[in-house]
Amino acid sequence: MPDGPKVSVEELVNDGFGPNPYFYALVCQVNTKIIGYSIYFYTYSTWEGRVVYIEDIYVQESYRGKGIGTAFIKHVAKIAVSKSCQRLELSVLNWNTASRKFYESLGGVDLTESEGWNKYRFSGNALLDLAKESA
Amino acid sequence: MPDGPKVSVEELVNDGFGPNPYFYALVCQVNTKIIGYSIYFYTYSTWEGRVVYIEDIYVQESYRGKGIGTAFIKHVAKIAVSKSCQRLELSVLNWNTASRKFYESLGGVDLTESEGWNKYRFSGNALLDLAKESA
Repeated sequence: MPDGPKVSVEELVNDGFGPNPYFYALVCQVNTKIIGYSIYFYTYSTWEGRVVYIEDIYVQESYRGKGIGTAFIKHVAKIAVSKSCQRLELSVLNWNTASRKFYESLGGVDLTESEGWNKYRFSGNALLDLAKESA
Repeated sequence: MPDGPKVSVEELVNDGFGPNPYFYALVCQVNTKIIGYSIYFYTYSTWEGRVVYIEDIYVQESYRGKGIGTAFIKHVAKIAVSKSCQRLELSVLNWNTASRKFYESLGGVDLTESEGWNKYRFSGNALLDLAKESA
């Protein structure tokens, strides 16, 4: 991908496997081959406390339709409950009807639709300019 | 608030001020009085690496309109840049036109509108059931 990941392997190793990791990872292994992964991290609600957020679920094409994605979600849910998290959250592209129906079938609620939460991002020069303007 | 925060002071202290904090907090102090705060934490993008997410910005009513909210955002942006974060993110209620215009004036982009990202949440029994079903 020409516009693909900008993060290096060194950064991923450093950020995910240090003493205070920025993310956690699960892999699905078939024999000796890793065929899928999930990346998650902890966020926080001042109303409800600890939250788990699933950033990525990926399963190689030939292994799809076997429930591996669902297994990842359920495993992260188990970790979430064991860590006293009150919520498990993730983001879905709103034109991806199949994924939305799937998450809803598992009990997920679309907060953008039901409560009106939109996500904003500052990046590139917008972020650098804000930082420079800080007194 | 009858349906107010369920998280206890003990949990907040434990989760925010331990060796591996779930969130970070800034306060704005006028003389000896704290009149505002901001809560943020780190999330992660497998494309761009470290991300800062602002969960809350609160300023007491009589201190609003003085740029304290903006100062919080700029200060978190400075921390983000110092921690090599590529993005600063937050969520806004989509009917809150004033807030949206404000964030957009600072260079924020509405990802829900521009890319279609909707947020999903599993909580309560939906989360517990998923956890129980994990093999």
